[in-house]
Amino acid sequence: MIALYTDFGLKDEYVGLMKGVILSINPKAQIVDITHYIYPQDVVLGAYILKSSYKYCPKGTIHLAVVDPGVGSNRAIIAFEMNGHKFLAPDNGICTLLAMEHKFDSIVKVQNSKFFLDSISTTFHGRDIFAPVAAHMSKGLKIKELGHEIDKKDITLLSIPYPTISKEGILYGNIISIDHFGNLITNIDSYTLGNFCGSYAKNIEINLSEIKILGLSKNYQTVKKGFPLAIINSQGYLEIALYCGNAQEYFNVKKDDILKVYTYEMDTFTS
Amino acid sequence: MIALYTDFGLKDEYVGLMKGVILSINPKAQIVDITHYIYPQDVVLGAYILKSSYKYCPKGTIHLAVVDPGVGSNRAIIAFEMNGHKFLAPDNGICTLLAMEHKFDSIVKVQNSKFFLDSISTTFHGRDIFAPVAAHMSKGLKIKELGHEIDKKDITLLSIPYPTISKEGILYGNIISIDHFGNLITNIDSYTLGNFCGSYAKNIEINLSEIKILGLSKNYQTVKKGFPLAIINSQGYLEIALYCGNAQEYFNVKKDDILKVYTYEMDTFTS
Amino acid sequence: MIALYTDFGLKDEYVGLMKGVILSINPKAQIVDITHYIYPQDVVLGAYILKSSYKYCPKGTIHLAVVDPGVGSNRAIIAFEMNGHKFLAPDNGICTLLAMEHKFDSIVKVQNSKFFLDSISTTFHGRDIFAPVAAHMSKGLKIKELGHEIDKKDITLLSIPYPTISKEGILYGNIISIDHFGNLITNIDSYTLGNFCGSYAKNIEINLSEIKILGLSKNYQTVKKGFPLAIINSQGYLEIALYCGNAQEYFNVKKDDILKVYTYEMDTFTS
Repeated sequence: MIALYTDFGLKDEYVGLMKGVILSINPKAQIVDITHYIYPQDVVLGAYILKSSYKYCPKGTIHLAVVDPGVGSNRAIIAFEMNGHKFLAPDNGICTLLAMEHKFDSIVKVQNSKFFLDSISTTFHGRDIFAPVAAHMSKGLKIKELGHEIDKKDITLLSIPYPTISKEGILYGNIISIDHFGNLITNIDSYTLGNFCGSYAKNIEINLSEIKILGLSKNYQTVKKGFPLAIINSQGYLEIALYCGNAQEYFNVKKDDILKVYTYEMDTFTS
Repeated sequence: MIALYTDFGLKDEYVGLMKGVILSINPKAQIVDITHYIYPQDVVLGAYILKSSYKYCPKGTIHLAVVDPGVGSNRAIIAFEMNGHKFLAPDNGICTLLAMEHKFDSIVKVQNSKFFLDSISTTFHGRDIFAPVAAHMSKGLKIKELGHEIDKKDITLLSIPYPTISKEGILYGNIISIDHFGNLITNIDSYTLGNFCGSYAKNIEINLSEIKILGLSKNYQTVKKGFPLAIINSQGYLEIALYCGNAQEYFNVKKDDILKVYTYEMDTFTS
Repeated sequence: MIALYTDFGLKDEYVGLMKGVILSINPKAQIVDITHYIYPQDVVLGAYILKSSYKYCPKGTIHLAVVDPGVGSNRAIIAFEMNGHKFLAPDNGICTLLAMEHKFDSIVKVQNSKFFLDSISTTFHGRDIFAPVAAHMSKGLKIKELGHEIDKKDITLLSIPYPTISKEGILYGNIISIDHFGNLITNIDSYTLGNFCGSYAKNIEINLSEIKILGLSKNYQTVKKGFPLAIINSQGYLEIALYCGNAQEYFNVKKDDILKVYTYEMDTFTS
């Protein structure tokens, strides 16, 4: 199985051509679109999605991630194994979050043009290099045959904008993605939030666009229709949502906007 | 084959993760996207699409419909057989139109968590429950092993907003969907329209946004480019369209807007 | 393999139903979406995409192109072979660019309704005619069994709006598509541009929306982030792009807008 992660969208023939190339080389390849709507050139969001998605695919899957503003330049392409999965991506930091949590094996800089298409454009390596290399990998080609081995420390890492805690004890995060429903996905993971709150999980106030949300909800139905809530989403990140509504419109926010999280003492006896 | 009907959109990794989970359990599953753009939480539209689409898939198909505003709450999940097809969906009324026209067999409330993922989020049962259950079904798991049997009358039914006829003899319907071309799909089916018109099929006037359309067209080319027409569409419903144009923009309407249908006597001798 | 090219979009169940029909007839068919976002009724763009995409699919692929404003009328449907590929499409000119460059074999007018669905709507031949015919072709049905043979000169050809050179020596082209990234794809192919420039490839000035671009770039990184550039894209056409940005927004243009290309003498000694 080959899993695709790109910022190509589905408007054009780009993804279709990658599939045509893959199936020309390996007619039995099984191709699954994970997403093609990573924001254009948003390598950081690609890193988040890659990290939280790969584990839902079968072991042995080849994860092909093409968010590649450097296409046609001399940026490298890397391939490696990790936890029984294989990865192929530009060396631009899209594997940063995987690299921070896992051991990589058989890391190579992909250079063996024998596995590329004969003619290489400067604008679409997805079709001309990534797709044919992934197709050959799906036929059993060993990663080491793709180029010379490199060390994990040689991989390009991104500076990921993590949530921060100010001197005043406020947790700052930001919106990394807005989903199809208008739900606001933040970079505040449940672990960071748990540490910040201590044992008082319900005892937080979230502030976004001067609107306050008190506490975390266990599911979307804990508020009335059209009301906002905060929840740990299915990927383990803090999400701001509206029950049966669109949080992006309600809060009038955009990607990268900042939210603040406060804790406060609960006066359990007088409330 | 597993056919997917959701309101998840294709912007995010949600559908891709469902596919990853399915193929992790049954690598030979054939997955077909019927639509992922049912309007968010629009269970009624889901009911229409499910009813008119399932029959174009092969017998034995598992139809997985996830429009699920109640995700994470205690709403039930149901599975059943019908006409040689299998269905898996939240028990929120999305099967209402199927239930009104067909006999169901082997109806169960899905509760056997042995067939779920180990860890269940409260926001994404599509990935954690529906996908793995459908995958097990595609491997031959009998529906009765998913939970205890229930009666058809125990299934949640929705109150579907059908077209109505006023005292004055006007047929009222509404727009249930606006398609990619801007065509306006209404809830007036050909049977209702036929009954309303009697034998004078061409003898109707449709009124939408104070614009009148006279008669039904047999195809889109019966009017000039950019002109409006009414037609019975491929699913058997009255559709308002513009030949080589966008009816939504022309009429400046939105989902749920109302249209009126009048009949009038044709004076066949003087016209 | 069956490759799909349509203007149906992915919002509705249209493409899904075509796949359901195909798999009902041939459960082993492999279906690949090349694109479903050809602009509505844009047969010319369909002709460009078909011509530049087919060759990336395996030999033997059935290319099913449904951009079909004449659906339900008496426009014909054609099937033919070309270079080891098979094609099925309405006879409305969508194969014009293929026809100008290649020899066609076994051309037929598709009329044998034995291979259609039993009930044919007037608005969705994609589901009722094209999908089942393609499915039968994928099972080995010979093209000649689909209808009577016709001559290549009987195929409908479109008048394609090619780039032109004015008396003053200015090359005029226009924007035929705007991609997901906002890149502007023009109808000026590299061959035409090469002929126009002579041997001075860098010696051109492109004028669009009163903004000038000097010379062609070899890749997107030759300018600073947010700056415009001109490049020959992966399909061999002149593309106007912004490095890490959206050219459509920058130039404030739309499909069909005109761009001008000038050549000038490079004064290589004084510059």
